[in-house]
Amino acid sequence: MAREQTRRRERRGAEKLASFPWRQVVNPYKPVDVLSADQVEAIHRASLRVLQEIGIEVWSAAALDRFARAGARVDRAAQRVRLEGALVEELVAKAPSQFRLHARNPERDVVIGGNHIVFSGVGGPAFASDLDNGKRAGTFEDFRNFTKVLHGLNVIHQEGGSIEPTDLPAETRYLDLYEADITLTDRTWHCWAFGRPAVEDALAMLEMARSVDRDRMLAEPTAITIVNTNSPLRLDGPMGDGLIAMAEAGQPTVATPFTLAGAMSPATLAGALAQQNAEALAMVALAQIVRPGAPMVYGGFTSNVDMKTGAPAFGTPEYTKAALASGQLARRYRLPWRSSNVNASNVVDAQATYESEMAVWGAVMGGVSLLYQGAGWLEGGLTASFEKLIVDAEILQMMAEVLVPIEVSEDTLGVEAMAEAGPGGHFFGTAHTLERYETAFYKPLLSDWRNFGAWQEDGSKTATERANGIWKQLLAEYQEPALDPAVREALAAYVARRKREIAAGS
Amino acid sequence: MAREQTRRRERRGAEKLASFPWRQVVNPYKPVDVLSADQVEAIHRASLRVLQEIGIEVWSAAALDRFARAGARVDRAAQRVRLEGALVEELVAKAPSQFRLHARNPERDVVIGGNHIVFSGVGGPAFASDLDNGKRAGTFEDFRNFTKVLHGLNVIHQEGGSIEPTDLPAETRYLDLYEADITLTDRTWHCWAFGRPAVEDALAMLEMARSVDRDRMLAEPTAITIVNTNSPLRLDGPMGDGLIAMAEAGQPTVATPFTLAGAMSPATLAGALAQQNAEALAMVALAQIVRPGAPMVYGGFTSNVDMKTGAPAFGTPEYTKAALASGQLARRYRLPWRSSNVNASNVVDAQATYESEMAVWGAVMGGVSLLYQGAGWLEGGLTASFEKLIVDAEILQMMAEVLVPIEVSEDTLGVEAMAEAGPGGHFFGTAHTLERYETAFYKPLLSDWRNFGAWQEDGSKTATERANGIWKQLLAEYQEPALDPAVREALAAYVARRKREIAAGS
Repeated sequence: MAREQTRRRERRGAEKLASFPWRQVVNPYKPVDVLSADQVEAIHRASLRVLQEIGIEVWSAAALDRFARAGARVDRAAQRVRLEGALVEELVAKAPSQFRLHARNPERDVVIGGNHIVFSGVGGPAFASDLDNGKRAGTFEDFRNFTKVLHGLNVIHQEGGSIEPTDLPAETRYLDLYEADITLTDRTWHCWAFGRPAVEDALAMLEMARSVDRDRMLAEPTAITIVNTNSPLRLDGPMGDGLIAMAEAGQPTVATPFTLAGAMSPATLAGALAQQNAEALAMVALAQIVRPGAPMVYGGFTSNVDMKTGAPAFGTPEYTKAALASGQLARRYRLPWRSSNVNASNVVDAQATYESEMAVWGAVMGGVSLLYQGAGWLEGGLTASFEKLIVDAEILQMMAEVLVPIEVSEDTLGVEAMAEAGPGGHFFGTAHTLERYETAFYKPLLSDWRNFGAWQEDGSKTATERANGIWKQLLAEYQEPALDPAVREALAAYVARRKREIAAGS
Repeated sequence: MAREQTRRRERRGAEKLASFPWRQVVNPYKPVDVLSADQVEAIHRASLRVLQEIGIEVWSAAALDRFARAGARVDRAAQRVRLEGALVEELVAKAPSQFRLHARNPERDVVIGGNHIVFSGVGGPAFASDLDNGKRAGTFEDFRNFTKVLHGLNVIHQEGGSIEPTDLPAETRYLDLYEADITLTDRTWHCWAFGRPAVEDALAMLEMARSVDRDRMLAEPTAITIVNTNSPLRLDGPMGDGLIAMAEAGQPTVATPFTLAGAMSPATLAGALAQQNAEALAMVALAQIVRPGAPMVYGGFTSNVDMKTGAPAFGTPEYTKAALASGQLARRYRLPWRSSNVNASNVVDAQATYESEMAVWGAVMGGVSLLYQGAGWLEGGLTASFEKLIVDAEILQMMAEVLVPIEVSEDTLGVEAMAEAGPGGHFFGTAHTLERYETAFYKPLLSDWRNFGAWQEDGSKTATERANGIWKQLLAEYQEPALDPAVREALAAYVARRKREIAAGS
């Protein structure tokens, strides 16, 4: 009996997991505005005032040089940069509103900007978690497994960095990640921008992966990274250097302040948004100084703290409103906009889910271009959860389906089918239904729609427990995408050489 | 240690549960349109064609009479009513776009229509469920407990019918429910419309509760009910009679087809929506024949089945799109619109939550007037869950907060606070933050934002497990709202008399 259930479950699983096709998601709906046009302008003007009067601290000598040469007021002793509003506006206007990010498999290229949406996986957690082994420090094995599972989920367009492999040497682990990203998946992925070398190595390895030169990379952006300010109003040295290196090569950076209202920004949404805007614009401006037209993404990550404890909160009503408002701000500058799928729960439960939904709806209804941290984030971003990855993939698949417009035609209106069924009849057997039997509706990855008895007989599993079975199935079914063995060898040799150089301090 | 944790928990709980104030929710944002204006008109025209060519089966003799006198083509043998499009449009235009529903406590009145939103509790499940006792047939005790917990949740404006008390005699249980609704809460609640007597008794008891006469009730609608069609295209006898009785008294009916695409309507959203529209308009038209200007709510409940098994699914992408489209249709007729908070999960887990969020976002972004089944629905509506009631209350509270516009002013923009904190500083101690310490952000009912260690030390409880503690606390803290003892006595005497009459078959 148990074996039969397992077999039935596996069949059901195997059938389901194949169902979602790779496709770029396009948002056909008008974004929801939570701010009036006047309010957007008031936030814009306040942020320009911040950059002009208070300025931003920049700990990168190279960035200070660039700002000074472009006409900013730079106080080198205080590492403070003050920017006139007109200069900021002139620079920001040079950034493109949309660009294509190239994958090593051209079929996995993505467009960032316009009404396109890219769903990216979680990036950054130092801990991994699953139902079998609980929470633990992330390892390279966790990173590899997470990336393999993600590769089996077509709705996640991009690998976001997933889990930090804390079992690898800190100075060189990024090289192992890059190599794993290139070999385990053929999608785009996020490189590190902690200083120039991490960017240079990403560029070199992506050139090998795609068999292209630097000029081609310039014309066809392939690397992408996140640069965060240390809010309030500080850009640290490695991040500043990394941003410059990306811009020089014409590769996109997602410029994301972390404006946690009440802690790293004012305890008001208007204030937190004004500060976010100031910090984001300063980074976009720096990139445009380095290379006019360098692709940039406006990053919004405004949330709030629990005022009783100072603990950060995510997926709150304030978070959602800030997301919707950030979309409006990004559109004001004609920049692609990044938002996130976040929550503060310690476990994959109802809270993790409703906070994530609040974040995803805020992003999508706000016209998001890049949903970073899109799948797998748990515990305020400290942990990457394998089960959450599956729950989020279902959420994202459902959202992708919501964005497919309703088809209204003589045929779909089906008045003849209603006449055929007649009052009190049923539609199971009508020709209209039979024609559409296979493709009529979204087929879920995770949701169980069986009745209570059938569900109970199959072990009364919660969605999180079922997610555990699904990621294991995806991991077991993983197939590495094809890669020229010569490229693979060259990558390995490059990584080995760079590790030796870094060990030698060169 | 355990006791200390319990005490801390109780304090935390007690502090939290008091926080959400009673208020009517107003939606300041423009609804999301998923249909073009042309598509709305195509659905409208298809639905008029359905009413004219196929017609609707009506099993109420009184309703057939009314339709015939109003000029419809009525085939009495087939109980079929066919309506010309012009007649439907003329009748539907008589319904008001907004009305106030009166509670026995005037402070609990609600406005239905315009940009107001009313959140209503679950209505109808024959089963109750909680973590302690699992799923069981609903009892009057369950109904009373559910209503008491709901009364402690200010975000739920209206009692929706909650749990069917299967331990009471079927013919008279509605009288016990009415008495319990009037005595246990001072909010509005849903009466039954299975035939004229259930409506007449609701009206009589509400007149006693408010100490008003029938004329005053006419001017101040106080009863509300749901009337469903037996889709496709059939209105049964008791429902037709109940609808007429409500309209005669000027009380609002929520006219809700149950158009499950692929089973009770075509396997296309356009078709299901056209059929929904036809059925809803027929009911609105009937009410306007009975009493021009009778308040009506356009009910949308289009979802889809799992095409493999025929099982109904809820909170699907199709459900969400149908909700958004239904909002557009209701607005086309300037009618208030009802949607629901639904899911198909058998347990209060991630699936129950993401399906509910899909439904709630579709409703709210679609400009919903009445969110029926707003809190407590589980298992496709077969079960009312006490823990789900708490999860949903949190979801609704968060949504109510999302609908509070961002305040943008010189003061909230906080540029001075940014200057005070300075680059790399923090805002905890700024004057700007201290002024807002208490009220800056939403305080959750259920979410736990503590770090992993503190959460683990407190028992590693999931949100569903914490919800169990919260509803019990609300039940323990329940206080019956004041009611004149004479009124209470009169109600009891009325119920006793009516039970005797019904037993005697009169």
